[in-house]
Amino acid sequence: MKTSAPHIVSAFEDALKRLKSAIVQMAGAAETQLDQALTCLTQRNPELAREIVLSDARLDSFEHEIEAHCMRLLVLRQPVADDLREVIAALKIAGSLERIGDHAANSAKRAAAVGIFPDSAPLAGLPKLGRLVRERLTSVIDAYVDTDSEAALRIWRTDDEVDALYTSIAAEIERSAAATPDQFAAHMHLMMIAKNLERIGDHATNIAEVVYFVSTGQPLLDERPKADRSCDPAEG
Amino acid sequence: MKTSAPHIVSAFEDALKRLKSAIVQMAGAAETQLDQALTCLTQRNPELAREIVLSDARLDSFEHEIEAHCMRLLVLRQPVADDLREVIAALKIAGSLERIGDHAANSAKRAAAVGIFPDSAPLAGLPKLGRLVRERLTSVIDAYVDTDSEAALRIWRTDDEVDALYTSIAAEIERSAAATPDQFAAHMHLMMIAKNLERIGDHATNIAEVVYFVSTGQPLLDERPKADRSCDPAEG
Repeated sequence: MKTSAPHIVSAFEDALKRLKSAIVQMAGAAETQLDQALTCLTQRNPELAREIVLSDARLDSFEHEIEAHCMRLLVLRQPVADDLREVIAALKIAGSLERIGDHAANSAKRAAAVGIFPDSAPLAGLPKLGRLVRERLTSVIDAYVDTDSEAALRIWRTDDEVDALYTSIAAEIERSAAATPDQFAAHMHLMMIAKNLERIGDHATNIAEVVYFVSTGQPLLDERPKADRSCDPAEG
Repeated sequence: MKTSAPHIVSAFEDALKRLKSAIVQMAGAAETQLDQALTCLTQRNPELAREIVLSDARLDSFEHEIEAHCMRLLVLRQPVADDLREVIAALKIAGSLERIGDHAANSAKRAAAVGIFPDSAPLAGLPKLGRLVRERLTSVIDAYVDTDSEAALRIWRTDDEVDALYTSIAAEIERSAAATPDQFAAHMHLMMIAKNLERIGDHATNIAEVVYFVSTGQPLLDERPKADRSCDPAEG
């Protein structure tokens, strides 16, 4: 439902399409970063970790380009209503994708660090958590491409799956740490990887909020379901 | 140096002033959250921690209000150049302040969780790191209020102080954990608090980038100094 003021449709719609395709391209780069970080998790390859850290700069420049693109659109086209929301959405999604790249790179570095421990700690459910947040990232980008508010809402509502898995993995890592007290550092890295993956899940949920907003014009104001009790003193 | 296209100066400048003062008010709320989280760190008071977590919702609604304010400004005033940068800056700073509130709330929860351990782990340099990032947050908001690019650059360039302190605290926590292997969970919480504070420092640096951009019209593109080697396999 387009309610924006009249504009030279073809030129502006072209510009919005280019913006959207820049976001999709950036999302592809973030997904690749995440895939490689997950590979690093099972292979614990310092060489691959270094590559991932280096290619993180690519996401930074993607974000700068998208921001510049949005600024140009705002100045030249002065969009309103739906079109303005599209531009603001692109700014916000690019910010989330950049942070996802950071979390992936940090996870890869830590996976390589765990790799140097001779009898390294168990991975617990980390690859499973990685796959879950990877799927959610793909789904939310699909929802963005299709401007699909229902899909966005579905993703937003199932955020607690990530939190529940994260909480159980955190407990598993704590148990493993208690059983092998000489390997604090390795368990620390595993815990930080779990946190990074959970944060990637959060960013996918944030993107779902943005997609919902851009599709419906309404913000998602309810409290998101929360199942992360990893800080609960009872579980501390 | 104002280079924007002509507009009804008084009304628009008033609106921008109101936007800026909304950001300053939100920053005040984020600073209060952080102060209370730091109090929690030394007092480890579960009651105070719960209050901090509850008042985090205030920062979320601040962010929504500022975003709505920015959207209205973009639609009604169609700003360009400096003025457009001001609006985009407000959007980005509000996003960072909201994240700062999250990190403060998470730190408070974890501090309370550490508190339940009878022989709790040492705090290492956490209060010092807390004060450092608190000062940096105040400075960067001052730089924003004064549109002071030099101050923003100074803050941006000294980001490595936070990273260096974080790295040394992480090492201290690891040593303490190795010495008291039955207290993995407490050390884990301390490490996560350190990470939260370091992230708050990162957000202050991100705000410095935004202030620099809004003051000069130029992005800060160089690599930020990095002294965080906490993931270095050598320190793993």
